[in-house]
Amino acid sequence: MALNYPNGQRYQSVKAPQNKKVLPKTQSFANRGMTFEQMINESNDYYLAKGIAVIHKKPTPVQIVKVDYPKRSAATIKEAYFKQASTTDYNGVYQGRYLDFEAKETRNKTSFPLSNIHQHQIEHMQQCLSQQGLVFLLVYFSTLKECYLLEAQDLLVWWNQKETGKKSIPYSYFQEHVALVPIRISPRIAYLEIIDKMLDRRL
Amino acid sequence: MALNYPNGQRYQSVKAPQNKKVLPKTQSFANRGMTFEQMINESNDYYLAKGIAVIHKKPTPVQIVKVDYPKRSAATIKEAYFKQASTTDYNGVYQGRYLDFEAKETRNKTSFPLSNIHQHQIEHMQQCLSQQGLVFLLVYFSTLKECYLLEAQDLLVWWNQKETGKKSIPYSYFQEHVALVPIRISPRIAYLEIIDKMLDRRL
Repeated sequence: MALNYPNGQRYQSVKAPQNKKVLPKTQSFANRGMTFEQMINESNDYYLAKGIAVIHKKPTPVQIVKVDYPKRSAATIKEAYFKQASTTDYNGVYQGRYLDFEAKETRNKTSFPLSNIHQHQIEHMQQCLSQQGLVFLLVYFSTLKECYLLEAQDLLVWWNQKETGKKSIPYSYFQEHVALVPIRISPRIAYLEIIDKMLDRRL
Repeated sequence: MALNYPNGQRYQSVKAPQNKKVLPKTQSFANRGMTFEQMINESNDYYLAKGIAVIHKKPTPVQIVKVDYPKRSAATIKEAYFKQASTTDYNGVYQGRYLDFEAKETRNKTSFPLSNIHQHQIEHMQQCLSQQGLVFLLVYFSTLKECYLLEAQDLLVWWNQKETGKKSIPYSYFQEHVALVPIRISPRIAYLEIIDKMLDRRL
């Protein structure tokens, strides 16, 4: 099981050889050694630097309990807890449009388990949709190295079927009905190309 | 001097009488005992509950250094530091439009010191403006109980004059040229009324 720090960074055992770069045979150039979150952050950095869009990941929400204010040095947080986020992780602006999305990675090859999504994220997506935001989910099948952009409207259809026992979205549904996001060198996850097509379709 | 915790909550001395509510004579009903941040958060809660807009304050960015994972209980952050935010504090969506703003409070009665604003916030505002976002600064003169919505375009004019020695925006400028935001019971800070006027003007 791959372990991540709460900030999304891949956990590395201290025993791992730090200087020896071993590329697994199945890993492509575009995303070697990167978590999906890092790939998205890099893409957002690219979009920002090129003046294409302003999209940021929100900071991890933390409940701060105890802070030390030592003289002459920075305040140190001595006790804090991770809080449940009340929104999705990413939002921003692209050509005047409000963009809002969540990014999820799965090692599963046959389906995307809906347990990856939380009720409060669904509610936030619904709220943003009713304000005409562009809302979606980026799903990365890490074993297959494929990223899909699932529009929130479609995600909601699946979510509402959860009660009937359908607890995951089959991979075949993604293949047949969901936009495949190009993975490039930069931007790594070229999701705005899919947004362009969405906007073209709406005009 | 009023001290706030880094999360914006008003610092209260442990000696303060907790149960005795003393209303200063000059404090209006609409904002008694609340920091400006709390008033804005309440307004955003109101807008969200009424389905008017989806605007959230971003979590305080924290650099997490050490986390304890005790068995059977929640992970505890044992060492962390406050990080400089790379964006403004608030953003969201209103009728398909991207909204982005920073909120600042001053006890100064004669001017708003530009030292309240950081270079990185100005840069973020410029980036959002170039993506046609609705970008602004809410300035609260806490002694006067007046809130103004200064459009980012106008803030930038003042910011660019800083080099010439103008290090603050006179209160008289706000009175004559800046939109006064209605302070109500709910929403406390009715800033979307000013946004409506901005949008009307642009049509």
